[in-house]
Amino acid sequence: MIRFVVTGHRAPTTGDFKLDDITGGAGRLDVLVRCVNSAFFLSHSIRTDTELFLVLEGGRDAPKTIRFSGKEIRYLNPDERSTASLIRNALLKKLNDTEIRSSPGIYVSRRSFSDVVDYLRTVSEIIYLKEDGTDIRDTTLPEELTFVLGDDKDLTEEEEKVLMACEPSKLCIGPLSLHADHCMIVVHNEIDRQRDK
Amino acid sequence: MIRFVVTGHRAPTTGDFKLDDITGGAGRLDVLVRCVNSAFFLSHSIRTDTELFLVLEGGRDAPKTIRFSGKEIRYLNPDERSTASLIRNALLKKLNDTEIRSSPGIYVSRRSFSDVVDYLRTVSEIIYLKEDGTDIRDTTLPEELTFVLGDDKDLTEEEEKVLMACEPSKLCIGPLSLHADHCMIVVHNEIDRQRDK
Repeated sequence: MIRFVVTGHRAPTTGDFKLDDITGGAGRLDVLVRCVNSAFFLSHSIRTDTELFLVLEGGRDAPKTIRFSGKEIRYLNPDERSTASLIRNALLKKLNDTEIRSSPGIYVSRRSFSDVVDYLRTVSEIIYLKEDGTDIRDTTLPEELTFVLGDDKDLTEEEEKVLMACEPSKLCIGPLSLHADHCMIVVHNEIDRQRDK
Repeated sequence: MIRFVVTGHRAPTTGDFKLDDITGGAGRLDVLVRCVNSAFFLSHSIRTDTELFLVLEGGRDAPKTIRFSGKEIRYLNPDERSTASLIRNALLKKLNDTEIRSSPGIYVSRRSFSDVVDYLRTVSEIIYLKEDGTDIRDTTLPEELTFVLGDDKDLTEEEEKVLMACEPSKLCIGPLSLHADHCMIVVHNEIDRQRDK
């Protein structure tokens, strides 16, 4: 299983944002919906072996985590607006202490970044993409792995502390610094190639 | 210079589409605006060595080509809606036989797919991404190169005929078939690595 965790530092946690303004009023939710696209879309199918955790840290009801399961997901389209709408539906759900299903393959909970990472470290190797890491092409990637990324901002100091406590592998995907959704495409391509050997 | 040509088989050629409906009413313009994002965005800058040609083949005034120059472009944001708005502005321009500037780095003309490819073959190597091509990692990519891609549909028979007349190199980027905008990310990553050596 390939897992991605993306932190949305200003991303909304209530469903009262406008779909016409996901870049501004909705705290750069556009960055996160592009990550959903990168996580799951193949040319004519969905990556069923992938799971994405969007940790939303902005707004009045933070934190919330939306989990997308490639194996179960339905009604997902590649465009930003329709994915933002699926997220809005999830944020309109009433929450208690457990994770609940918003639509097929989309789950919402009150988990924080450290809740998510503390869980994932028990089931997979944690990987931090950094410019000074080992080249991903020189690494044999394990079956169970989790990549942790920031949205348009790097991880906060506190998040980095949580992450470093997991002793993550540091990997680099190329000489230039890319948007989170673009990093995910390069990562998938390398995994596709390694698993095809 | 890295150039991409993407054909929008049903993409609009008049500016009367709604920004809220770029997936449906605007003939999958969403696919093309994601290609704009992939062509140009780095984490904190723009790829100035890249040019993108969107060949729009749908609607009442086909064909039109919108050319994006990374060196000159301004007012470009990564989200789909704002890029669709830049394209709409270009399509509202009155055209004669020459290419005209719509906004900094964005140009529009009545060029067809074959007009664009016939020009580009004189200035660069033409590359066709195909599953049965040579692995891009096993190829030394030249300085001047043009990648030709379809939107969510493959090239038409006629377009493929035009392309094959250029005797393009056939390259493959991995074992799975990806969306056009995702292919562009993988291509850029390989070029970044080769030019960094």
